[in-house]
Amino acid sequence: MLEYEAFEEKTINRQEIFKGKIIEVALDEVALPMGGTSYRELVFHPGGVGVLAITPENKIVLVKQFRKPLERVILEIPAGKIETHEGRSPMETGARELEEETGYQAETLEHLTSMYLSPGFANELLHLYHAKNLKKVENPLAQDDDEVLEVYELTLSEAKEKIQTQEICDAKTIYAILYWETLFLRERN
Amino acid sequence: MLEYEAFEEKTINRQEIFKGKIIEVALDEVALPMGGTSYRELVFHPGGVGVLAITPENKIVLVKQFRKPLERVILEIPAGKIETHEGRSPMETGARELEEETGYQAETLEHLTSMYLSPGFANELLHLYHAKNLKKVENPLAQDDDEVLEVYELTLSEAKEKIQTQEICDAKTIYAILYWETLFLRERN
Repeated sequence: MLEYEAFEEKTINRQEIFKGKIIEVALDEVALPMGGTSYRELVFHPGGVGVLAITPENKIVLVKQFRKPLERVILEIPAGKIETHEGRSPMETGARELEEETGYQAETLEHLTSMYLSPGFANELLHLYHAKNLKKVENPLAQDDDEVLEVYELTLSEAKEKIQTQEICDAKTIYAILYWETLFLRERN
Repeated sequence: MLEYEAFEEKTINRQEIFKGKIIEVALDEVALPMGGTSYRELVFHPGGVGVLAITPENKIVLVKQFRKPLERVILEIPAGKIETHEGRSPMETGARELEEETGYQAETLEHLTSMYLSPGFANELLHLYHAKNLKKVENPLAQDDDEVLEVYELTLSEAKEKIQTQEICDAKTIYAILYWETLFLRERN
């Protein structure tokens, strides 16, 4: 087993390229552990939260929204960025996004997993929660004012069909649906 | 159900921020469907491939490598970027990365799913394959010259433990392991 030093790429120089509202971009020149140097293109992101929310009718709650990088609308689990400056925990962010985007509140949010989405160039960490015992809220929190969303509730087989047709096509949602499916599989064992 | 026009964000102006070897970064000013404008920070990426490879001993093949955005080593399934200019299909890229990184060749690569890792700001699409009937190659393709890798083979329960300890912590690998687990669950049904 190699020691950590055999892997580490030390930064020789960092060029700051962009400081946006959401991401920051940098170009690092690094010293390679086997000698020599290379460049690493880096994106820093505050991280996000996604919520697997299943209704009492055993349907998954999804939101349809336009995603500019893809130039199309897709169906995703409720999700949002962590707003570091607002001091909310990932779980509080999850509860808030669920209510804002879908009008549901959950009795509990169980942490399922946290995953780096694209560790080759980005440090974005996505925390995934399972919202339990949903109920509709009379006066939910308002949505963000630059988002248009439409809420859908699908059965497991409907959701799997939407993966086939690629209306569902993002990692957190595909993972959440596979996780939901394992709950059925485990029940039957 | 809302029409597409109710969601679409038309680009008014695009500012090109960075053209790297791997990613390109842009800042779009967009016209919002409900009126008004906003900005979208965008990262364009050629996409990648990941390979769930299970040995005849029923172990998953993983590679340990340093990831600069995280400043640490993690364990991942074999993976790589799509090199568009080299004209290789995603499946060919998967076969090649598997051999280069682990020394294994597969009889077949079955497509499992393709997922956008971070559709809020990036268009990166990851194609996931299941490599079947692995065999060790006598003289495998050489690794990329700026990567230090170490290969591990883990049982399902060892892999799940590495998720708990966060040595395994990226979306494609966590998804691949959950998928592998469903194969066991389905067998038992």
